[in-house]
Amino acid sequence: MADTRDEAHNAKMKKVKAAHDKIVASKTVEKGLIIVHTGPGKGKTSAALGMAIRAIGHDMKVGIVQFVKGAMATGEAAVFAKFDNVEFKPMGEGFTWETQNRARDVEVTRVAWEEVKRMIADPSYDMIIADELNIVLRYDYLPVDEVLEALAGKRDAAHVIITGRNAPDALIAVADLVTEMALVKHPFREQGVKAQAGIEF
Amino acid sequence: MADTRDEAHNAKMKKVKAAHDKIVASKTVEKGLIIVHTGPGKGKTSAALGMAIRAIGHDMKVGIVQFVKGAMATGEAAVFAKFDNVEFKPMGEGFTWETQNRARDVEVTRVAWEEVKRMIADPSYDMIIADELNIVLRYDYLPVDEVLEALAGKRDAAHVIITGRNAPDALIAVADLVTEMALVKHPFREQGVKAQAGIEF
Repeated sequence: MADTRDEAHNAKMKKVKAAHDKIVASKTVEKGLIIVHTGPGKGKTSAALGMAIRAIGHDMKVGIVQFVKGAMATGEAAVFAKFDNVEFKPMGEGFTWETQNRARDVEVTRVAWEEVKRMIADPSYDMIIADELNIVLRYDYLPVDEVLEALAGKRDAAHVIITGRNAPDALIAVADLVTEMALVKHPFREQGVKAQAGIEF
Repeated sequence: MADTRDEAHNAKMKKVKAAHDKIVASKTVEKGLIIVHTGPGKGKTSAALGMAIRAIGHDMKVGIVQFVKGAMATGEAAVFAKFDNVEFKPMGEGFTWETQNRARDVEVTRVAWEEVKRMIADPSYDMIIADELNIVLRYDYLPVDEVLEALAGKRDAAHVIITGRNAPDALIAVADLVTEMALVKHPFREQGVKAQAGIEF
């Protein structure tokens, strides 16, 4: 019985492999991608950090600019500090409801955005992460047209990853890869669990 | 005009901050979470790796067992090798359509699962990641009841993160935090782009 099951499985897998190999063989393009992580669920920033780690391990140069988070003692900051090929720049001043000063938020956003533009233009960077950029676009702290212009001028080899909920449609339209993180269950909302090291920061 | 807009914004943000502070104050529970990353979109493993990096940076001990991926030269492996407080164990032998041997896949799964159980039971681990565990559950290489039993016996302080598409309903039911990664746009499917360093491995 177990043998029959194994044989049927193996025959099926042979067909799956043939189909899979054919698909892989048809994929030959290598190019820098515009990647967007959006949606109300968790994991948007974490997934970008995971990609940064992969790139760092491949000796690629990575630049990370955070638009909302300020310089708090995060776990990723401690790890990135050990590597020469990553620049980690938390350039926000907290969430907009914390700062309570729109004019200041716009200024802070401008400084961070200039840093992202510099990294996109500098050929030494292989991957640029604009963390929570969608948030400042959503609040109109930065015109989306400026972002589209910078992306249109992106070097072919550079990957750009943009995170944050409520990605504008115009950004999704130019992206190569868009993932929507959807919330199925969240302990913050349902169980009174607070933000914890290793999970949220 | 700009002043009026700023003032209206600032007043609104004052209210948002009051509401937000109230919510944060009500969250007092600190506990090890059962976290599931599922869905057909990208970022499930990357987000788990991002959490691992945060935990490593906070001097937590992290154990990572990969059920499907074998010991290929990934970027994350190179980074993790530099830290004493992470054990990274790619214990798979490729995708099931590559191995084409169900009996062998079941054996390999068993060995990897015993390693996860060891980490869950060992109080020195703060975070345990079972990468692509959902895949082997889906193929019935491991009974989901064994996983539920191990999770029920989990130490309060330990976080367990399980990734892979098609998470079983029974697993979602016991999880504290479930994110579904949904595919909006994917260059593999649509543009003939191949797997690239820093993005997929």
